[in-house]
Amino acid sequence: MSFADKTRIAQAIEALARFNATPGAGVTRRSYTKEYRDAQEYLRRELEAEGLSVRLDPVGNLIGRREGADGALAAIAVGSHLDTVCGGGKFDGAVGIVCALELARMMREDGLSLRHPFEVAAIVEEEGSAFGSGIMGGKALAGMLEADYLKQLKSSGGMTAYDTMTACGLLPEKLPEAKRSRDSWACFIEPHIEQGPVLESEGLPVGIVDTIVGIRTKKITIIGRPDHGGTTPMHLRHDAMVAAAKLVTLADQLAGELNDGTVTTCGALRVEPGAPNVVPGRVEMTVECRSPRQASIDAVFGAVERQLAQLLAAGYQVETVSLMETTPVRLHQRIVASLAGSVREKGLPVRLLPSGAGHDAMFISRVTDTGMLFVPSRGGRSHCPEEFTDAGDIAVCCDVLYGALKALDRE
Amino acid sequence: MSFADKTRIAQAIEALARFNATPGAGVTRRSYTKEYRDAQEYLRRELEAEGLSVRLDPVGNLIGRREGADGALAAIAVGSHLDTVCGGGKFDGAVGIVCALELARMMREDGLSLRHPFEVAAIVEEEGSAFGSGIMGGKALAGMLEADYLKQLKSSGGMTAYDTMTACGLLPEKLPEAKRSRDSWACFIEPHIEQGPVLESEGLPVGIVDTIVGIRTKKITIIGRPDHGGTTPMHLRHDAMVAAAKLVTLADQLAGELNDGTVTTCGALRVEPGAPNVVPGRVEMTVECRSPRQASIDAVFGAVERQLAQLLAAGYQVETVSLMETTPVRLHQRIVASLAGSVREKGLPVRLLPSGAGHDAMFISRVTDTGMLFVPSRGGRSHCPEEFTDAGDIAVCCDVLYGALKALDRE
Repeated sequence: MSFADKTRIAQAIEALARFNATPGAGVTRRSYTKEYRDAQEYLRRELEAEGLSVRLDPVGNLIGRREGADGALAAIAVGSHLDTVCGGGKFDGAVGIVCALELARMMREDGLSLRHPFEVAAIVEEEGSAFGSGIMGGKALAGMLEADYLKQLKSSGGMTAYDTMTACGLLPEKLPEAKRSRDSWACFIEPHIEQGPVLESEGLPVGIVDTIVGIRTKKITIIGRPDHGGTTPMHLRHDAMVAAAKLVTLADQLAGELNDGTVTTCGALRVEPGAPNVVPGRVEMTVECRSPRQASIDAVFGAVERQLAQLLAAGYQVETVSLMETTPVRLHQRIVASLAGSVREKGLPVRLLPSGAGHDAMFISRVTDTGMLFVPSRGGRSHCPEEFTDAGDIAVCCDVLYGALKALDRE
Repeated sequence: MSFADKTRIAQAIEALARFNATPGAGVTRRSYTKEYRDAQEYLRRELEAEGLSVRLDPVGNLIGRREGADGALAAIAVGSHLDTVCGGGKFDGAVGIVCALELARMMREDGLSLRHPFEVAAIVEEEGSAFGSGIMGGKALAGMLEADYLKQLKSSGGMTAYDTMTACGLLPEKLPEAKRSRDSWACFIEPHIEQGPVLESEGLPVGIVDTIVGIRTKKITIIGRPDHGGTTPMHLRHDAMVAAAKLVTLADQLAGELNDGTVTTCGALRVEPGAPNVVPGRVEMTVECRSPRQASIDAVFGAVERQLAQLLAAGYQVETVSLMETTPVRLHQRIVASLAGSVREKGLPVRLLPSGAGHDAMFISRVTDTGMLFVPSRGGRSHCPEEFTDAGDIAVCCDVLYGALKALDRE
């Protein structure tokens, strides 16, 4: 029986990283660009060398397929996205594709015969770096994308997503054919870098995602009154920054008290007029809560709303705008159990953890049984040139996947 | 005995406001501009009509002089600044000059004979709107300005203060002659708008400034670590915004607890990277404390420093830069007492209050006995077109001054 080859894995990561619009300043591989299509061609050749047939679906997801012994069965699919953010790293997205390629190689080396077909998915436009709309390829696979939307969505250069796809030789008019279901995919597993510090801090090579967190993000504007910072006594002020600071502290404390994987972030905050000697009259800030538990998100924003009500009563004005709202997604127990069984077989501890970021798997989970495996991110860093995952950890991930794949094939 | 004429006062305020570079968008009368020199000419004519002789000192302070009966005595001086901020109001600075003009009119109407000469000072470049360096004319009067500095100081157009003065027919090379002392000014009194809400909130037409607050302003940079706002658990974060929020709350609480006229303001705050889903890695903020008591300023920044030390111990980096440092100035008891006596004579309550803003009087107090009278600012507003002070209140201020002036003349 084959084991994953970490040298081969490292070479594939480096090979993909060379398809890059910004050498020397991180990896930039935006969907539908020349470097993106060159990366697809590289992948096509590598997969064909392992005996897979390769096609592009209507929106540009690359699908490699190895037939199974039982022509009636749906495929077991593995993959992730091939695009990157601007100036990102070598691992985000690429790890899932390299794992799928490595599995294809291991199968060929072992002459493995599976009952199910095996598919590799190199998904397009997850980061939204081409059109600003994230997880587009994943939504197409889940049948959640409309052709009209593709005709509205424009790149910064002004070309629509629809026209861009057509110009790349794709067939966006056949968008519905991109949709997968349990009839074609028995399951989908996405290996991905953690993009956080948990696995590294616990010294683990892999973790199993049980939930993709829900996200609620609001922009909150607090309007007080700008006053002279020297001549206005404290009791006559309506200082928007002092009010905002209390909200920042509240959000931070709430997440700490919940202690259930809920995180809160006040990441953007703008003060007006913004001079050292003027009492702030207006603060625009964001409050974001992510949690595997919907009840925790509701609890955080319930407390935030009560604090805002107190500000209103004290003479401030408050405006709230919703920026994002997704509910937590539980990944499928069948896949989690299979991955956990394989982790245990390798003599490793089973670490379940939530994903704090969105992924293609979030939408694909609506159409078929879906799982995710995380590998460690050094220093928790991602979306930057410093992003790094050890090839040895990726190899462990492949071995775990290989075991799970064989177990799932028996189901 | 004459009383101040509020109609005449209102007309003088309006007359000065017409010397304005931005009609319809507040009053903009920057030092040394055409509109500034036109305002000086208007004032020269008005003062000469009341029998005063008028001259410009080497930097452009306009000095009107009415001789006294005793040629050996130094003058009693009254005045304020003639320049405005860009897009400011009609009252800041102008009130003090209009009061001095009204006093000259009252003296002529009464045929008042004083032992001391009486001088009107229309001081140049207090706001720093020409060269960005505030209280320049006041510093010249206090002998605290260097000719070399005037040669370095440039307007946004690139012309030095020295050359600008020369182009206006002034004699900056004779700068030392601008300096006043007890030999030429027995005392100086500056009537000014409060620029804060205290007198209005207490329904008082005048207040006597006993102290000009000290000011300490620091720029504090808190450096934590930018992390993914979804994937980084709360206990593994170094969130610079959460740290900054605690500092904002601390500064606000300290001023409230001191309850001695101390105010604190965190007026500017900038967050990086500043995205809703990224843990803030860096916050630059200002902390300003103003107080009539130096011990209170030291106490506030002592507590701030202790909090910063805690952040250092928790793994943050902290940088602190001093932006401003002035110590509290106590105005002279002789002048405060004389003004208080006159207020009481009018049957009004004596309200002593600190000035939370800097004024020419702050520097002039170093060379002669100095006092300030405040009149109410509607809504505490200043440095904006909405700035307003009732002419009736300015008339009360003139009457108080007239009484104090006669009392001081007897000393």
